[in-house]
Amino acid sequence: MMAGVKGGFAISIDDVFAAHQRIADHIIRTPAIESERISNRLGCRVFFKAENLQHAGAFKTRGAVNAVMSLNDEDARRGVVTHSSGNHAAALARAAALRGIDAHVVMPENSSPKKMAAVRSYGCEPVLCGPSTPEREAAAESLRQKTGATLIHPFETPAVMAGQGTVGIELIDQIDSLDAILVQVGGGGLLSGVLIAVKSLRPDIKVFAVEPELADDTARSLKAGSPQSPTRYDTVADGLRTEVGANAFPIIRDLVDGIFLVKETAILAAMRLIAEEVHLVAEPSGAVSLAGLIDQAEQFQGQKVAVVISGGNLSFGACTMGTH
Amino acid sequence: MMAGVKGGFAISIDDVFAAHQRIADHIIRTPAIESERISNRLGCRVFFKAENLQHAGAFKTRGAVNAVMSLNDEDARRGVVTHSSGNHAAALARAAALRGIDAHVVMPENSSPKKMAAVRSYGCEPVLCGPSTPEREAAAESLRQKTGATLIHPFETPAVMAGQGTVGIELIDQIDSLDAILVQVGGGGLLSGVLIAVKSLRPDIKVFAVEPELADDTARSLKAGSPQSPTRYDTVADGLRTEVGANAFPIIRDLVDGIFLVKETAILAAMRLIAEEVHLVAEPSGAVSLAGLIDQAEQFQGQKVAVVISGGNLSFGACTMGTH
Repeated sequence: MMAGVKGGFAISIDDVFAAHQRIADHIIRTPAIESERISNRLGCRVFFKAENLQHAGAFKTRGAVNAVMSLNDEDARRGVVTHSSGNHAAALARAAALRGIDAHVVMPENSSPKKMAAVRSYGCEPVLCGPSTPEREAAAESLRQKTGATLIHPFETPAVMAGQGTVGIELIDQIDSLDAILVQVGGGGLLSGVLIAVKSLRPDIKVFAVEPELADDTARSLKAGSPQSPTRYDTVADGLRTEVGANAFPIIRDLVDGIFLVKETAILAAMRLIAEEVHLVAEPSGAVSLAGLIDQAEQFQGQKVAVVISGGNLSFGACTMGTH
Repeated sequence: MMAGVKGGFAISIDDVFAAHQRIADHIIRTPAIESERISNRLGCRVFFKAENLQHAGAFKTRGAVNAVMSLNDEDARRGVVTHSSGNHAAALARAAALRGIDAHVVMPENSSPKKMAAVRSYGCEPVLCGPSTPEREAAAESLRQKTGATLIHPFETPAVMAGQGTVGIELIDQIDSLDAILVQVGGGGLLSGVLIAVKSLRPDIKVFAVEPELADDTARSLKAGSPQSPTRYDTVADGLRTEVGANAFPIIRDLVDGIFLVKETAILAAMRLIAEEVHLVAEPSGAVSLAGLIDQAEQFQGQKVAVVISGGNLSFGACTMGTH
């Protein structure tokens, strides 16, 4: 155990190191791109960790690959199962295909057609279910019992958390003298993984969470001292509508340097700014960290700050982009 | 002079090497990102050289920085001048600001407001003129005579061509066993620079040009054996409406492995595919090389192919991106 992080969490820095080695050949080491224009505008040097360029379009690929490649051969033969409306679904389908095993992916019937198509593109037909969390969990559990497949939860499975934490290892390596990292939080898999990595290796780097005001369960959980449920599920940042995970929460509670809440309009403005000025396509969920930085720019003046951008799985109509 | 490239061209590999060193601290070494989905779709491994993530949004920054940093102090003091409706204008304004000298940038009055704003963002007020080439050239020449500034042409200035050629050096370094590079051609600065770099260092790598059917002057010039004028100026790929340069033409004629013409619909489809599947924002001009690869995919089966993506300087309306 290194300085700065006590033991007893669901994952340790050794798990993140192991994930880093295990997944290296199967993921993209995404660039951390500085945007000079946004740096000038905000008064700090802003680096975009471009996980929207990751295979399957999101950081979820890291955790999914790590979880699938961690299985012993006997478990692997029985396949994997998950429920997800979003990028974890495609990421797990891809990871299972890489290992040549079955993936059983439960998706709510109101999932985005594009995200369903992404799952199919990896040779996996999603199993549809009702939209509520109990319906999703029941469908996944039923498949698990029938097939003996291993559940790979989108954020609660420790191997998933460790895989997402490799974003932190890469950022430390890619940006000299980094001062702070801003990370969006939904279930907390990415945030907790990054916290374990960064606070173990470079406790001087601040790590802040950013969460939509309309999905503020993590902020309320930190105040209450225990995980609180969401009260609504309608933020435009659809990837962050979940409640913070039981494995992630203690890590976030003990290690995060602060949490910023952002408005819906700020999320959409950040998404547009990322497209127009950085020339990256991010989903609303993947633009939340920049929204937080814009709101809080004053406290980062002169610093080097990384924001994690993810999930570019959007559709563009024929009329959507103009040269003027 | 290395194997494969004779002398007598406007630039040599030594010029490209010198540019590579000169500009290193002032540009982004842009990533060459593989898109697994597009690779699977096309049957070859496709790498996107993401020059849309370059400072000022386009590869033009390389040539502009190289040209400005190549000036001796006396010339530099009198500033630089150019005419451009596009990304070279902003790139030169930025390069001049880096060196602390004046830039006089002539832009047609019908230029995109976004591109004018980009020039202003580097502290340079564009000088507006009529839209025709003679009007642009006259306005720039008048400014040159008045100020003594050095003309930095968007593609004819050898230092600009050498700067764009650094894309070729980086690609060779970034992608093992690369088989082919597809490069869009307008004035030919990028194409000729890449040809000098690649054919000097790795003559086994094929380099193909891609040009809009509606701006086919380079294809006609290659057939005729001498530079031919454009017959129309209405391709959606507005950065490629210029005629091929007199300095670039002999390089292209002697070294290019072929030229592909693409339809307007193919350019727009490629731009959309880049946004939806790769999650990068490219201008139509910057999507032309992918359009060529899609058309010609059959001849690249099983190969490793790089396409140069550039210019993400688009505007997005509030309604332009959807999660479904």
